[in-house]
Amino acid sequence: MLIVMKFGGTSVANAERIMNVASRIKRSYDSGNKLAVVLSAQSDTTDDLIDKAHEINANPSKREMDMLLATGEQQSVALMCMALEKLKVPCISMNASQCHIYATCDYSNARIKDINVRRVENELDTKKVVIVPGFQGINNRGDVVTLGRGGSDTSAVALAAKLNADLCEIYTDVDGVYTGDPRVISHAKKLKEISYDEMLEFASLGAQVLHNRSVELAKKYGVNLVVRSSLSEAEGTIVKEGTKVESMLISGVAVDKNVSRISIIGLEDKPGTAYKLFSEMAKKNVSVDIILQSIGRDGRKDISFTVARSDLQSAMDAIESIKNKIGYQKVDHKENVAKVSIVGAGMATNAGVAALFFEATYSAGVNVNMISTSEIKISILVDEKDADYAANAIHDKFMVQSANLRH
Amino acid sequence: MLIVMKFGGTSVANAERIMNVASRIKRSYDSGNKLAVVLSAQSDTTDDLIDKAHEINANPSKREMDMLLATGEQQSVALMCMALEKLKVPCISMNASQCHIYATCDYSNARIKDINVRRVENELDTKKVVIVPGFQGINNRGDVVTLGRGGSDTSAVALAAKLNADLCEIYTDVDGVYTGDPRVISHAKKLKEISYDEMLEFASLGAQVLHNRSVELAKKYGVNLVVRSSLSEAEGTIVKEGTKVESMLISGVAVDKNVSRISIIGLEDKPGTAYKLFSEMAKKNVSVDIILQSIGRDGRKDISFTVARSDLQSAMDAIESIKNKIGYQKVDHKENVAKVSIVGAGMATNAGVAALFFEATYSAGVNVNMISTSEIKISILVDEKDADYAANAIHDKFMVQSANLRH
Repeated sequence: MLIVMKFGGTSVANAERIMNVASRIKRSYDSGNKLAVVLSAQSDTTDDLIDKAHEINANPSKREMDMLLATGEQQSVALMCMALEKLKVPCISMNASQCHIYATCDYSNARIKDINVRRVENELDTKKVVIVPGFQGINNRGDVVTLGRGGSDTSAVALAAKLNADLCEIYTDVDGVYTGDPRVISHAKKLKEISYDEMLEFASLGAQVLHNRSVELAKKYGVNLVVRSSLSEAEGTIVKEGTKVESMLISGVAVDKNVSRISIIGLEDKPGTAYKLFSEMAKKNVSVDIILQSIGRDGRKDISFTVARSDLQSAMDAIESIKNKIGYQKVDHKENVAKVSIVGAGMATNAGVAALFFEATYSAGVNVNMISTSEIKISILVDEKDADYAANAIHDKFMVQSANLRH
Repeated sequence: MLIVMKFGGTSVANAERIMNVASRIKRSYDSGNKLAVVLSAQSDTTDDLIDKAHEINANPSKREMDMLLATGEQQSVALMCMALEKLKVPCISMNASQCHIYATCDYSNARIKDINVRRVENELDTKKVVIVPGFQGINNRGDVVTLGRGGSDTSAVALAAKLNADLCEIYTDVDGVYTGDPRVISHAKKLKEISYDEMLEFASLGAQVLHNRSVELAKKYGVNLVVRSSLSEAEGTIVKEGTKVESMLISGVAVDKNVSRISIIGLEDKPGTAYKLFSEMAKKNVSVDIILQSIGRDGRKDISFTVARSDLQSAMDAIESIKNKIGYQKVDHKENVAKVSIVGAGMATNAGVAALFFEATYSAGVNVNMISTSEIKISILVDEKDADYAANAIHDKFMVQSANLRH
């Protein structure tokens, strides 16, 4: 099999862990696989470099920051090759120029546009393990650019897509995707499989196993992903276009506590109000999540929405600044709320999911502030203090229901 | 003026020193110069990277070592740009790929073949200071290679040559080239000027101010070099094709204590003996320095030569191994000898230099073992214990003679 393996910063944090990863690569190589390996920078390296930069300039240009940070991955790939050389595994490291990872111009937040994999393929054909830096690319000016958060996952998926790899293994410090955050959800279980869409909803709900961009890319190119632990031999979770999981109701529960609610009461009910409101939010760089609008009455309506807690003040200021333009009676906000969501491809075709969901919150005695639904997701807004309790109640209710179907 | 400035690892060792260098660059920029700046890695960085590598593999491939070490200079150039940004100096950093430094394939010891300076020139034309990594290049496989000892000096000179720069300033931790090592020669004086050839002889005699390769390159392309301190405003020493210095007898005295002498007594006086002897030395990687051969007599001759002290045993073994092939009576060696040399373009045309030299050693009561001369150099072999004393005596004799002519 042709496999792309990706290891994050903690997996290569020191000499011992690098040797561990090298041994794992060797086992896969010895069993006959062709391997391209994508690495992040050693976990301390990036922080050290950022410190060095800030000692000199609190606000360096993004271009120079990228030039600096990209060295972290280049060090990782060289060190990993040295470890593989010690284990007598034929290998070669490359930097972003050498493996022709072309990216957009956006320093510190570039996107991969294309990879010319000819050289990587040539090296793979000579039975070498090819070690490639994640998180970076080359833009059309020939400058080094970094890919922003989750960039190494994206590098791995893009490489797997271009190489037509049989599998893209994302090694991380958890051993798979769980039905909920095990620190919050007592009965959380590891999933054997999850679909791209479910994974996307999961990621956007705050489960930081895989970055959205990498999952989107995997979906687009049909890359088979596996999320597994670099520390154990556990099997991990497969992310792929799944039909087998349809019979299952939900794939998991997520809790997001970085949420505040804002309600604008008594808005003038005329066309363009919502547009003016949310374009002002965008201008202030405030991302809006759940939006609910009441049915208009007496020429007035209410709009409620949630924002990240750190954006609350900016959002309130924005609303105040356009009071005259949109016209409203008062603004109300609540800081200590949380979003509890269930995700599952099975929901779309399964009647009774909503009923089960609200049965759970009702039994748990949790008051639901807002509700938002998509084809494969239901989110509710609850008081922050109720969030974990509600999430567990919902999780257990659905897991019992799904148990026979799935496990 | 178009100036190439080069700063070594100690000059950029930490944030404070980087800011100092940035201020110096700013002063030169503000006075209207076009500047390309070549940097070494921060002095600790290279050592730290080597430690990291050796923790993983005591004997890593040179290719991967180059891949690893090259990140050091890339970090320096990015950090320097951040410092210049803070001082509002327009600037841009480049890595070896971006500034098209083409080098030979020899990992860890490559030579610069060519530099395509179009992009550097374009950036200079837009009034940016261009910051470039020293010590590295790209070989014809697209791999990063390092240039070996003194590599950053060579990078700077090569860039100055290709840019047709008016000046190449080598900033270091000494403020110029001295007539002798100030730690040994009490009355050592800083030279205002020195010729390429004198500098070459000096470098090969162990004065580590500039690496030979960079001086050779400067001579070949007629690059005006200045050696000066990064810590003071002192004027430094100009290295150039000089006619002005002809009237001066010597430019300096050097002492090399890493020397042993070997004498082969009673060699058969037939053709090919010396060839067999020295090709055996080369095979064992022993560099031979001064060679003296006596006039043959009774079908026998003697050959004496010096080697680095660390090579003495290898040399003795080599001689033993070819005893039957070359035929000799006995081998004699002496470990504690030293080479004292004077260098000066003036010697070639000045009668009486040798007389003055031996007057000095005679007055000092120093016994001379061997003598070797070139157009601009006289070296003698003395007992190690006499070396410093002899060097000072010679230095002072010549400085008194030259005083009227030069200073």
